Amino acid sequence: MKVKVGINGFGTIGKRAATAIEQQDDMMVVGVTKTRPTFEAYTANDLGYPLYVPDEEAKAEFKKAGIKVAGLIRDMYKKVDIIVDCTPGDVAEGYKKEYADAGVKGIFQGGEDHSLTGISFNASANYKESWGAQFSRVVSCNTTGLIRTLYPLDKRYGIQNVFATLIRRSADPGNSKSGPINAIEPSLKIPTHHGPDVQSIMPWLNIQTMAVKVPTTIMHLHTIMVKLNAEASTEDVIALWRDTKRVKLVKGKSGIKSSAQIMELARDLGRSRGDMFEIVVWEDGVKVVGDTLYYYQAVHQESDVIPEIIDCIRSMCKTEENASASMSRTDKAMGI
Amino acid sequence: MKVKVGINGFGTIGKRAATAIEQQDDMMVVGVTKTRPTFEAYTANDLGYPLYVPDEEAKAEFKKAGIKVAGLIRDMYKKVDIIVDCTPGDVAEGYKKEYADAGVKGIFQGGEDHSLTGISFNASANYKESWGAQFSRVVSCNTTGLIRTLYPLDKRYGIQNVFATLIRRSADPGNSKSGPINAIEPSLKIPTHHGPDVQSIMPWLNIQTMAVKVPTTIMHLHTIMVKLNAEASTEDVIALWRDTKRVKLVKGKSGIKSSAQIMELARDLGRSRGDMFEIVVWEDGVKVVGDTLYYYQAVHQESDVIPEIIDCIRSMCKTEENASASMSRTDKAMGI
Amino acid sequence: MKVKVGINGFGTIGKRAATAIEQQDDMMVVGVTKTRPTFEAYTANDLGYPLYVPDEEAKAEFKKAGIKVAGLIRDMYKKVDIIVDCTPGDVAEGYKKEYADAGVKGIFQGGEDHSLTGISFNASANYKESWGAQFSRVVSCNTTGLIRTLYPLDKRYGIQNVFATLIRRSADPGNSKSGPINAIEPSLKIPTHHGPDVQSIMPWLNIQTMAVKVPTTIMHLHTIMVKLNAEASTEDVIALWRDTKRVKLVKGKSGIKSSAQIMELARDLGRSRGDMFEIVVWEDGVKVVGDTLYYYQAVHQESDVIPEIIDCIRSMCKTEENASASMSRTDKAMGI
Amino acid sequence: MKVKVGINGFGTIGKRAATAIEQQDDMMVVGVTKTRPTFEAYTANDLGYPLYVPDEEAKAEFKKAGIKVAGLIRDMYKKVDIIVDCTPGDVAEGYKKEYADAGVKGIFQGGEDHSLTGISFNASANYKESWGAQFSRVVSCNTTGLIRTLYPLDKRYGIQNVFATLIRRSADPGNSKSGPINAIEPSLKIPTHHGPDVQSIMPWLNIQTMAVKVPTTIMHLHTIMVKLNAEASTEDVIALWRDTKRVKLVKGKSGIKSSAQIMELARDLGRSRGDMFEIVVWEDGVKVVGDTLYYYQAVHQESDVIPEIIDCIRSMCKTEENASASMSRTDKAMGI
Repeated sequence: MKVKVGINGFGTIGKRAATAIEQQDDMMVVGVTKTRPTFEAYTANDLGYPLYVPDEEAKAEFKKAGIKVAGLIRDMYKKVDIIVDCTPGDVAEGYKKEYADAGVKGIFQGGEDHSLTGISFNASANYKESWGAQFSRVVSCNTTGLIRTLYPLDKRYGIQNVFATLIRRSADPGNSKSGPINAIEPSLKIPTHHGPDVQSIMPWLNIQTMAVKVPTTIMHLHTIMVKLNAEASTEDVIALWRDTKRVKLVKGKSGIKSSAQIMELARDLGRSRGDMFEIVVWEDGVKVVGDTLYYYQAVHQESDVIPEIIDCIRSMCKTEENASASMSRTDKAMGI
Repeated sequence: MKVKVGINGFGTIGKRAATAIEQQDDMMVVGVTKTRPTFEAYTANDLGYPLYVPDEEAKAEFKKAGIKVAGLIRDMYKKVDIIVDCTPGDVAEGYKKEYADAGVKGIFQGGEDHSLTGISFNASANYKESWGAQFSRVVSCNTTGLIRTLYPLDKRYGIQNVFATLIRRSADPGNSKSGPINAIEPSLKIPTHHGPDVQSIMPWLNIQTMAVKVPTTIMHLHTIMVKLNAEASTEDVIALWRDTKRVKLVKGKSGIKSSAQIMELARDLGRSRGDMFEIVVWEDGVKVVGDTLYYYQAVHQESDVIPEIIDCIRSMCKTEENASASMSRTDKAMGI
Repeated sequence: MKVKVGINGFGTIGKRAATAIEQQDDMMVVGVTKTRPTFEAYTANDLGYPLYVPDEEAKAEFKKAGIKVAGLIRDMYKKVDIIVDCTPGDVAEGYKKEYADAGVKGIFQGGEDHSLTGISFNASANYKESWGAQFSRVVSCNTTGLIRTLYPLDKRYGIQNVFATLIRRSADPGNSKSGPINAIEPSLKIPTHHGPDVQSIMPWLNIQTMAVKVPTTIMHLHTIMVKLNAEASTEDVIALWRDTKRVKLVKGKSGIKSSAQIMELARDLGRSRGDMFEIVVWEDGVKVVGDTLYYYQAVHQESDVIPEIIDCIRSMCKTEENASASMSRTDKAMGI
Repeated sequence: MKVKVGINGFGTIGKRAATAIEQQDDMMVVGVTKTRPTFEAYTANDLGYPLYVPDEEAKAEFKKAGIKVAGLIRDMYKKVDIIVDCTPGDVAEGYKKEYADAGVKGIFQGGEDHSLTGISFNASANYKESWGAQFSRVVSCNTTGLIRTLYPLDKRYGIQNVFATLIRRSADPGNSKSGPINAIEPSLKIPTHHGPDVQSIMPWLNIQTMAVKVPTTIMHLHTIMVKLNAEASTEDVIALWRDTKRVKLVKGKSGIKSSAQIMELARDLGRSRGDMFEIVVWEDGVKVVGDTLYYYQAVHQESDVIPEIIDCIRSMCKTEENASASMSRTDKAMGI
């Protein structure tokens, strides 16, 4: 029997989670929610997802806009085993209580604090920690990106310390409100929260981060310096990542000079929504100098966490014991 | 028997034409060409298209880069009925001669002048003019966009004159070289060439255009003023376009405030590469005042001509006599 | 004796008005106001302007931040003949009452409606309408831009009708919050309010406008089509504008291809803050075809209204009867 | 008697050097050069700089465009003591020979390699190394930026090592050709050349750098991690920089959130061309954690080297022995 999943919040992450869940053979979407009758609500209708709304007033408003509504959000709780919570910040605490009262499981996103759930999730690093849990949290896009490349490095060589700069996109492609149009903005509270967030999965890791926002919509990019405990060559490190799931190597020499060409590649590969689920490392931008490794990686903020959400469902619902097996199933179904 | 198509130039337009051709049941891609071993050449391999290159030197270079090559471009000519020429500007004249010598048909793109072929193509407006022709030209993205909405207006009401401003994206999403980053650049030679280009299809139309380039990559946007010969209401015009193929109405009220949300919608609809093949008109941005109609439309420069290319193949290869029937087949296969 | 001016709101327009007033020999800044202790408040201190704040609480806050405060805003009213109101939208109504109660004159900005004052101002077109008035309104940057080039055309040739598209910068250079980063956004309510706003100065003019926002910070750009009543050549029109105050001709041939090079030129000319007070018309982008004139103009949204504010002060305070004499004094003092 | 300076190349750096030289009381501009008759050539005329061109053909072309020409570049050599070479990359080698033949001194810019001159210049760090030299090189904007904050740190505490990420603006404000519009592009050859370039001035420093280009025109921004040899507090470091010439502290708390507000501040301060000659450090973005200092700094790429060029002239022409005295004279005259 398939795991029945509800998506609370059919936005950037929610709609991608829905697509990925439907691609799996052991889970299904039984409902999605939306608070306002925007074009994404019409899309939910078009794609055939039962659509739930907060209250009767919203129901009337949606109907007036010609959007079919399946019921209220609280009705959806009765039909699901687990909720993927993709609501905006600041409301998760309240929803967690609702899920608890309804007796359903809940996966939160990286915008929430680790303390909300006490458990954070990354498929490679700690699949088993969410085993059977009622609540877990899939860490943010940037944190997922850092763990994807750092965890295998740490396992193989041991890491003495990490210093990373996160050059962040300022708004998602579908957001035309936020800027800046022509500026760079530093995150002044340093070290930034990204280091501690990585430590919610790898508590032993010595990592410091700084971050800036720049006027782009398509990807984050990280510059990373890692001091390794054991000797490694540039080639060794590249070979390690070549064998790492959800890490993709590209080359500047092949014309992939920037995040623009990575997104172009993703579109050409026929991924749903042109997404790049893998963390992308420039092979010709990796270098070991002495005991220190330097590299660049790009993170598709809209989609890199999606396969993790799928694996987290399996761990929490205890439908697949083995992390690697779950990851393989997820990736195969998603075309990764 | 399927029409055998070769794609000369596997770039922005070429790769989309390939995808769309493969989606049809009466034509197939028998080869694509590439002059340099970039990531798009690997993609051609991954997608299973036989890849042809200019000469033996290139062949060696591609092989060294690990890319499979099926032969030289001139070898491809022997296998095809028709070439879709997606080569960059300034080389079409030479290629046309090659196609003529090889006895194959050729479709050129809107970057070339009308005089190259003497026939220009738009499916709604002049499908039959390319019937059986050896060479034709699918007009540019902007020209296609103007014709899609103006042709039905002219047919229904008659047009006295048109004045349009084209606000053009400065570079495609996969191009990270071109700017500007923070400026608006006018096309100083006015009226711009877009008016005469529309006249290559609708020679009787009185149309003047001006154009500027702005720092965006995703879509062009047109502001259009049309003086009509017959009385029309705002509602009439909207109803006309609702029934027009390859024109899509959206609403600001539904959250589609800008080109950003249009591209988001296209990705959600599951289109290949997140493309929007239709010309998008804002329903709540259409207004008739006296005898004058004002409207905004958005043009996805990477993809709006793709369905036209498919129809043009059918007209030139005489596999479907009826324009409307061809358009319906094309659109259904492409998920439009 | 110099006219004593208070600036209510020391932001983008307010600080420029202050600079321009200080450059004149018949008026002076006796105070500026600020509601929050930002870096612009420090600048007001550095530049020696007495700084007034809303209330005692603010006073304490400013002092804590090390900023000298001269008193409360209501204290400033007692020291001035006229206030240049540069407060943000939505508060003008209340301030107008305060100015009236204090018995001081007030100049509002184009963000406010014409109905607030019943009089709107442009130096060339209607200098005398504000003569001795207690309240007037200097029209917005875009409206000022349209009037600067249209008024002399209308006077010389007569205008049958105008259709303009305004391609607007989305945020000022010092604003890093607003987007879009990568989109074009149309103003869906058409015709837009810019036409009626021009009519607040030239009520007889037949003008329609459409507008879009684009991701740039430095200038607006207009594409304009004007149907003239009398015959004109391209050269005539250029000659007319060459003799028009506050209109500047530039050439693409000289390397001024876009708004970027206009701003570069302004910086090179040694203008305060690198401002371009003139409306800039591309000489090689002007063309008369039949009875219709087409042209492009660029508008520096931060500064083009500043000389108008100076002239408006003179008209309202009755210190200079002649519009042209006032404009000459203003321009000479500002280095235009 | 004033030092007679020629500016070879009246572009971004050249025109600023000219302005700064004219502001000093011990040097003067006796000529500037330009190869094409762009608007900047008209500006040179307007500002009264004698303008020299490459050859008779150019002379004719400039005259035709209405630009006054004082003579050929080789004529200028006879009138100067020293040339500030602001020519584009790849031609410096040839010009150096010309300067040598003409017996004049020459200052090159950071776009050239250290090996061209064998001496590189920063006023604080090695003023005396260029003393009386015929040729020297003022290091690039980014290198100058790094040295301005690192040199005093090294002098006070000793530096064990530095790791910096340079987030670079992709084009200058007056350049509307270069992109990217919407992408981040890493410098794949790592560590990048910026570390070795700092070592041309501070050869003992252990420094590694990575770099990315982002879609902004106004400033570079650096994230810097420094391991110090001696104990330091956050407050100590801030106090040190407060006393450091050409370093300016700003606060996010005062509304300076990004590079946008820094440029706004520079315009408000009345600097020529709205330039920010200082390296700007966010006071509330400085933090010492254990033995490691983290900070953000912003670099105005168009202007930070200008005061260094002035000091370099004094050192090479032996008109001021003391570095600190020269810096004070320069800064006072430039309004820093």
